[in-house]
Amino acid sequence: MAYGTLYLIPCPISDETAPWEVLPASNREVMDALDYFIVENTRTARRFLSRAGIARPIDMLEFRELNEHTTAGRAVEELVQPLLEGRSAGVISEAGVPAVADPGALVVEACHRRGIRVVPLVGPSSILLAVMASGLNGQSFAFNGYLPVKPPERARAIRFFERRAHAERQSQLFIEAPYRNVKLFEQLLQLLAPQTRLTVAMDLSAPGQWVETHAVEEWRHRQVPDMNRHPAIFIIG
Amino acid sequence: MAYGTLYLIPCPISDETAPWEVLPASNREVMDALDYFIVENTRTARRFLSRAGIARPIDMLEFRELNEHTTAGRAVEELVQPLLEGRSAGVISEAGVPAVADPGALVVEACHRRGIRVVPLVGPSSILLAVMASGLNGQSFAFNGYLPVKPPERARAIRFFERRAHAERQSQLFIEAPYRNVKLFEQLLQLLAPQTRLTVAMDLSAPGQWVETHAVEEWRHRQVPDMNRHPAIFIIG
Repeated sequence: MAYGTLYLIPCPISDETAPWEVLPASNREVMDALDYFIVENTRTARRFLSRAGIARPIDMLEFRELNEHTTAGRAVEELVQPLLEGRSAGVISEAGVPAVADPGALVVEACHRRGIRVVPLVGPSSILLAVMASGLNGQSFAFNGYLPVKPPERARAIRFFERRAHAERQSQLFIEAPYRNVKLFEQLLQLLAPQTRLTVAMDLSAPGQWVETHAVEEWRHRQVPDMNRHPAIFIIG
Repeated sequence: MAYGTLYLIPCPISDETAPWEVLPASNREVMDALDYFIVENTRTARRFLSRAGIARPIDMLEFRELNEHTTAGRAVEELVQPLLEGRSAGVISEAGVPAVADPGALVVEACHRRGIRVVPLVGPSSILLAVMASGLNGQSFAFNGYLPVKPPERARAIRFFERRAHAERQSQLFIEAPYRNVKLFEQLLQLLAPQTRLTVAMDLSAPGQWVETHAVEEWRHRQVPDMNRHPAIFIIG
């Protein structure tokens, strides 16, 4: 029997954005055909599919969660089992594209190991939008995930990214929990060299999106919008 | 007088894909409103806008090129001048999203320096699609552009990416001119350690897209589709 296919299904980054404002209409065909979804959070995934107006009633769909609470090995086996039996599945993360900066890669990996076909769909990624809009080097860039939380390690990480950005001309992206953005931004202005370029990209793909790139010395005497609780990406270039 | 806005306008990656299959319908509003485009290649940009069926006649639009033949400083000044005079502009690259892996970042940078607003739109990126579909670490990854062409430097680069992928658990992406894919793939199977994981992602977002991830020792005795002249992304994980 032929295996099912694993589709990677993006959703909006922001609650303020309607699904079809940031997703190609052709994603709908795939979404309409599926009845099994592997999701980071069932509540937000149901809400997304419902706002997208897919063909099937949401209550007829099966949702299973894959997130940091799911224990790896055994749980992933079980998630993939229906695909081995010929059923296709959609992976949906909490925001943006799945399997980037979330646990979705575990199920993708399990599919490759078993020869199950994986198909990624187009959608919004704050990482990619930030690189595009930064004006920093887009021919070489690295996404580094979250900064360490403890102050000494955090400062070390920031200095490390600055050194690598300069030495390799590689733009260095990182993120922070949105309620810590203001503190992080202050710390960046303290720790980075005056000439180092820094991008702040906030609320990407949402109505109030805001991206600016300046040298650190210029950021120091600029007015900036309130960053508190606004999802943001930072890039050192 | 208020400045114009710089919009970053994605186009399809592949000629086989119709624009609205991979672009959100809301991009059209922006595309319909613009009459000035900064493009990597005028011929392909006109063709894209025409296939997208935008509101204005293509012959009424102004196109100026920004590519590796454009000399930096002075030329970029001239491209940005209309924005200072209140006219908005769209940046369009040869394939996929602009300002990533192409010269578009130069004009974005010039806009940030002058306080001109930059707005990125959603669209297909083979880099992002490859990370999503790889099953390799999507919490930390680096795009490294093209490999060096000369054999000794090329081998050094491949070994360097393998070491970094292992030491930092950072997925390492790179690309090659499509007519050299077969040779590169052979070289990767020779140089990389048996346990190193390798992703090959071909023809992303096109009808025949194909992505697989395996350990190098497994790739060695696998049948692979013909890679010659198919745009591909390679990832070491």
